[in-house]
Amino acid sequence: MQERSFEDLADDFPVIFLDAFGVLIDASGLMGPSPEVIERLLTAGKDLYVVTNDASRSPEALAQYYVNSEGRPTIAADRIISSGTLAGEVLAERIDGGKVGYLGTPASAEYIRRAGLEPIPITQCDEDSAIVGIALLDDEGFDWREGINRTLAILRHKPVPTVVANGDLGYPVGNGRVEAAIGSIAQVLEGILDTRFIRCSKPDSIMFSRAFEKATQDHPGLLTSDVLMVGDTLQTDIRGGRDFGLKTALVCSGHTQRSRVPELVQRLGITPDFLCESIFT
Amino acid sequence: MQERSFEDLADDFPVIFLDAFGVLIDASGLMGPSPEVIERLLTAGKDLYVVTNDASRSPEALAQYYVNSEGRPTIAADRIISSGTLAGEVLAERIDGGKVGYLGTPASAEYIRRAGLEPIPITQCDEDSAIVGIALLDDEGFDWREGINRTLAILRHKPVPTVVANGDLGYPVGNGRVEAAIGSIAQVLEGILDTRFIRCSKPDSIMFSRAFEKATQDHPGLLTSDVLMVGDTLQTDIRGGRDFGLKTALVCSGHTQRSRVPELVQRLGITPDFLCESIFT
Amino acid sequence: MQERSFEDLADDFPVIFLDAFGVLIDASGLMGPSPEVIERLLTAGKDLYVVTNDASRSPEALAQYYVNSEGRPTIAADRIISSGTLAGEVLAERIDGGKVGYLGTPASAEYIRRAGLEPIPITQCDEDSAIVGIALLDDEGFDWREGINRTLAILRHKPVPTVVANGDLGYPVGNGRVEAAIGSIAQVLEGILDTRFIRCSKPDSIMFSRAFEKATQDHPGLLTSDVLMVGDTLQTDIRGGRDFGLKTALVCSGHTQRSRVPELVQRLGITPDFLCESIFT
Amino acid sequence: MQERSFEDLADDFPVIFLDAFGVLIDASGLMGPSPEVIERLLTAGKDLYVVTNDASRSPEALAQYYVNSEGRPTIAADRIISSGTLAGEVLAERIDGGKVGYLGTPASAEYIRRAGLEPIPITQCDEDSAIVGIALLDDEGFDWREGINRTLAILRHKPVPTVVANGDLGYPVGNGRVEAAIGSIAQVLEGILDTRFIRCSKPDSIMFSRAFEKATQDHPGLLTSDVLMVGDTLQTDIRGGRDFGLKTALVCSGHTQRSRVPELVQRLGITPDFLCESIFT
Repeated sequence: MQERSFEDLADDFPVIFLDAFGVLIDASGLMGPSPEVIERLLTAGKDLYVVTNDASRSPEALAQYYVNSEGRPTIAADRIISSGTLAGEVLAERIDGGKVGYLGTPASAEYIRRAGLEPIPITQCDEDSAIVGIALLDDEGFDWREGINRTLAILRHKPVPTVVANGDLGYPVGNGRVEAAIGSIAQVLEGILDTRFIRCSKPDSIMFSRAFEKATQDHPGLLTSDVLMVGDTLQTDIRGGRDFGLKTALVCSGHTQRSRVPELVQRLGITPDFLCESIFT
Repeated sequence: MQERSFEDLADDFPVIFLDAFGVLIDASGLMGPSPEVIERLLTAGKDLYVVTNDASRSPEALAQYYVNSEGRPTIAADRIISSGTLAGEVLAERIDGGKVGYLGTPASAEYIRRAGLEPIPITQCDEDSAIVGIALLDDEGFDWREGINRTLAILRHKPVPTVVANGDLGYPVGNGRVEAAIGSIAQVLEGILDTRFIRCSKPDSIMFSRAFEKATQDHPGLLTSDVLMVGDTLQTDIRGGRDFGLKTALVCSGHTQRSRVPELVQRLGITPDFLCESIFT
Repeated sequence: MQERSFEDLADDFPVIFLDAFGVLIDASGLMGPSPEVIERLLTAGKDLYVVTNDASRSPEALAQYYVNSEGRPTIAADRIISSGTLAGEVLAERIDGGKVGYLGTPASAEYIRRAGLEPIPITQCDEDSAIVGIALLDDEGFDWREGINRTLAILRHKPVPTVVANGDLGYPVGNGRVEAAIGSIAQVLEGILDTRFIRCSKPDSIMFSRAFEKATQDHPGLLTSDVLMVGDTLQTDIRGGRDFGLKTALVCSGHTQRSRVPELVQRLGITPDFLCESIFT
Repeated sequence: MQERSFEDLADDFPVIFLDAFGVLIDASGLMGPSPEVIERLLTAGKDLYVVTNDASRSPEALAQYYVNSEGRPTIAADRIISSGTLAGEVLAERIDGGKVGYLGTPASAEYIRRAGLEPIPITQCDEDSAIVGIALLDDEGFDWREGINRTLAILRHKPVPTVVANGDLGYPVGNGRVEAAIGSIAQVLEGILDTRFIRCSKPDSIMFSRAFEKATQDHPGLLTSDVLMVGDTLQTDIRGGRDFGLKTALVCSGHTQRSRVPELVQRLGITPDFLCESIFT
């Protein structure tokens, strides 16, 4: 693990994958100097992709963060790989159209619709609904007990492809609080059914293969080691990037405090190639 | 594993522990010939205890099953070890009185009250409530999402002793359906908090030590191998009884079909000492 | 968790279970003031039992530690519950005599012989040996690769009852070093065979039920809460004692440093009833 | 899951990844009609890559299997992605040269040497050897107990990057026998050290990203869904390929019997896109 300034480090890579939350944005939006950093990288000819475990907004909505001082887009929707979008796409690749039961908000159902499938809330389904796939999208928008028990009934009646938009068990909601995420609901269902669903979020390889696949379109001959993955979380960004063969940089502007890096690296056994204070410094 | 008729087998043991559901009772109440079997065993001088993962009714309510043809009680409340009662007692032994947050029905809160503690629904608590213990009792009676997130907030603010009345992840509800149980909620909380709560249900040792402790009061010098544990489930009744040092008999009148016994024994690595069709035959 | 002096605490309990290593003895033998403490407790009428995950010496050999200043025995062999002895006994209760394959030193085979069974090194067995049980006793005395592969061959040919004398994955050998224990070998076999063996070491309930069963012979009406379990390790002594319903005291004279107690208690979710510096102070 | 003849299915894909064992070769070498199938695919312009969890032979040695009737090579060494080779490469990317301790045969050490590093048997190392990385390569060639305990000593003294050539816990050796593999040794070390090593074998994403990276060199604009992964094992070939976004075909010529496919698919929750009897039929 080598300490480097991000500015200096970025020079060495033609393609950079960036996590969003804790790297480019925080709860109040784009972090202070992010627009300048993005513009500088683009001017230097870097290809940027955002790779994010977000399953609450569309790529278009996510792209609205990334504009320059004149409001012109800098990172377009087609360069944002989000776990929500991927959940819809992965499911569509496994089934030939039809009704997909989902757990989540009505907004999250949009991922299913965009993938050409017909979303229907699981709380309105039973064994007799002609459900051909299931998507676990968001922890809001339904009664958990009913949602879980109906999903159990459907999957015990007939197993259908089931995707989980985000495998994280919980997520921070401010003030040191953590709430249970859709990944916890997936864990309950998997535990009772003794099976394992398809997951579409970092550190899962599909997030990285989709981004890499896109990057090779513009960079014939691109190697995985030509790509730098920048993230603030060892277990998702760095582990996933490392396992895929990317070079990895941990930044300390989000989830991981700098003072805890050595202990975490040793305990988790996940070492980034590079350590940066943030992408600004 | 030796096949024996239960009548014959029971002769060899002065003390018998019986699971309730699938052994003595089913969804419609006491199974056909159970009253006669119980009377015969009592007449023969056997000491009977019911050891049950039930956390929905009081020992007095459970005892109402066990009456003879004249309506006279046969197995009294003080010989019924239930995980609900135990959850209250175990918690009371760990704290010096006070308010206990619980997840479950108002009826299940009775376990806390009987143990001399003051139950309060977790959905009415927050970090500032002076909660000194938490009891996960039943999957009904509260909104799951709110219940789970409030429990997370309380335990992250200050860890307090937490008991789980029944560790089973799900339970059968008829027609081949399974619903998620309070044990699944415990698993979600433990996963996010990276801890492990105190469990009070078979195969946990407390169920058996409490029953054995009672049995020794009337049988000075009793050995664990003098006790026969009779149950219909390998993972709870037989595993727990075996690990404690009891002799174990699997009956095929409930959860476990006779035809699947050899495969299950091999796959789970749990072999009962004896195999009986039921306690009737 | 209440801080108490051990002398004061011991007054409240008629029966005391003591872990050996880190409580009474260390690498150089009986710790300084242990003989005086033992004598004082016995004079005060306490019944003492040693409950130890030792699978390398016989109860008689272990009893030689416990003598007073005149060399007279203080804790006799029949009051020492060791996982080695228990492994032999538990196996004997599951089979009707015959040849038992074992992994361990020739000395450890003595546990099998004392239980009335015929020990034979697994490295001298194959599928055609008439093996009726297997005992995983010690990490020394055999070639690991050969021992593991022969055990796999035998158990895949015909599953027989298999006991593990000590489930610990590793053990300290001084100078901060740790070596792999027989529990690691059990884990390899269980992983490949997808099964779970019978374990006979703290925190498993059999260690405590065997000790409690003995204690009730002299104390009719003894309750589990009348017994104090004293140990230096949260995951084995305290967790096992707590789960059984005993009162528990953690001492800081061995495996657990006092300064780390609060963090460990919180991380593991295992809280002893009492905390003592040692049994001497 | 759609049943297709492989000949027909292969038409739809410009690039095909093939597992070796159970698909192209068996214990006695190249399976009967494999040379003809390979020639036909190459003639039809398909790009073929072998993706194999083999860590016992060099790519050159593996390539010797793939020759046509005149002995001319059909699949060259640079199109064979093996976990042994990858282990060396992945380690080399994490360290700046130096001595690498290894567990395995002297032949397996060749993977380290080819990656520009200096292999040294762990059984000849201790904490004071200037080891900068560790490679767990093969289950043969060393005393397990010594190898495991020395690795523990080194990694507890100073954690260094550690790769596992093959994560499988065991492997078949004929006659229904299974032996423990280097993955089991990794599991022992990880369990005691409470960490997780870097793995380089299917279903790990590095195997697929390395093969895909190579394939894109000749196929600018290649998508992951343009690639068919063909394998005989659900947990490695199909799970890994699916998670990466490839199309997957399970063949029944090796590890998986056709009659067990429906049960396995349901139990494991891993569904291939296509099911073929073999690549020949």
